[in-house]
Amino acid sequence: MRQRHRPWADDFLRDNPHLVITDPKEKKGRWQEIFGNDRPIHLEIGTGKGQFITGMAEKNPEVNFIGIELAKSIIVMAGTKLKNSGMKNALLIHVDAANLKELFDENEISSIYLNFSDPWPKKRHAKRRLTFHTFLEQYKHILQPEGEVTLKTDNKGLFEYSLVSFSEFGLTLKEVNLDLHSEGDQQNVMTEYEEKFAAKGQPIYRCRAQFA
Amino acid sequence: MRQRHRPWADDFLRDNPHLVITDPKEKKGRWQEIFGNDRPIHLEIGTGKGQFITGMAEKNPEVNFIGIELAKSIIVMAGTKLKNSGMKNALLIHVDAANLKELFDENEISSIYLNFSDPWPKKRHAKRRLTFHTFLEQYKHILQPEGEVTLKTDNKGLFEYSLVSFSEFGLTLKEVNLDLHSEGDQQNVMTEYEEKFAAKGQPIYRCRAQFA
Repeated sequence: MRQRHRPWADDFLRDNPHLVITDPKEKKGRWQEIFGNDRPIHLEIGTGKGQFITGMAEKNPEVNFIGIELAKSIIVMAGTKLKNSGMKNALLIHVDAANLKELFDENEISSIYLNFSDPWPKKRHAKRRLTFHTFLEQYKHILQPEGEVTLKTDNKGLFEYSLVSFSEFGLTLKEVNLDLHSEGDQQNVMTEYEEKFAAKGQPIYRCRAQFA
Repeated sequence: MRQRHRPWADDFLRDNPHLVITDPKEKKGRWQEIFGNDRPIHLEIGTGKGQFITGMAEKNPEVNFIGIELAKSIIVMAGTKLKNSGMKNALLIHVDAANLKELFDENEISSIYLNFSDPWPKKRHAKRRLTFHTFLEQYKHILQPEGEVTLKTDNKGLFEYSLVSFSEFGLTLKEVNLDLHSEGDQQNVMTEYEEKFAAKGQPIYRCRAQFA
């Protein structure tokens, strides 16, 4: 189904310009101002249907959350979820571009989440993986010095690749978890995909890494 | 059973002083001389019954191998295996001490293998794990600058811990493999333990890391 067949998506975007930002480049360097406070900003790249960002916003009212999602029909689902939650400490960005430096100033972000990102398993597609060095270079730019990148995935190949990519770029691993759900981390907020996948009993991998 | 009940072990050590070295501190800085060539030296810490070092010696005749093992009855089994193989590019060290700097000069070693090391799962025993920072500091000292540490284990907790410990010490991860046997690495030489464990279909973890 193509975008022109989804008038409800366009309607939602038109009606919720403060929840789903469609001109994010205009807001670069002013995100705290937009949230109306000086709390740290956490960024989720690839927000999907929004269960993670909504849950995180509810669990962490002292943090501002921004979710980026490219697919219009998907970001509208996330927007609906977020709107229904009533949380004011999260918003979404609808962008096609992958250039984060156009969206955020240096040091503007405190934490980045990559949840179940596309693994791009073929070697020739490695540069599309969100943990490829060109992305890490962008994360380093927009993150504060102590800022963290948290990767969560069920994809073994992506996780193996990312640990090496992080390390070779100079990030320090602060945590590696090879079976997140076996440990029962009460702080973990599941994505929709994670919920289904974990129900099958297959391992979820997570790591936290820092540019330092 | 205590050592005095194993005269065969003492006999083996007495009869094979060039295969199982019992006075390794005397050899510090002279290991290549003892091998009689200038080939790189690879070190296995915790050699066990010797299947790995024997297999590696057979597969890699251009490398010298040294295996360290503390338990007398075990090192004699490894010694017997090595002797039967007829390989001259491997020897064993029987030491109680964990101070590698007493055994090897700076830069004397090219590669270190930690195979199925004791995981010491309790937090208060972390300092006994062979990937605790005090051990890494010793490895760094005896390894050449481009030298690698290769860790292989079935223990999830030890592997998670070690990745973080390596990273925090400043090692760079060159490879992470979360299911070694699923990939069918023809170069992999299995330990006795690995063979039994892998037969159950449980994952074997491996990583290679470099001080650089």
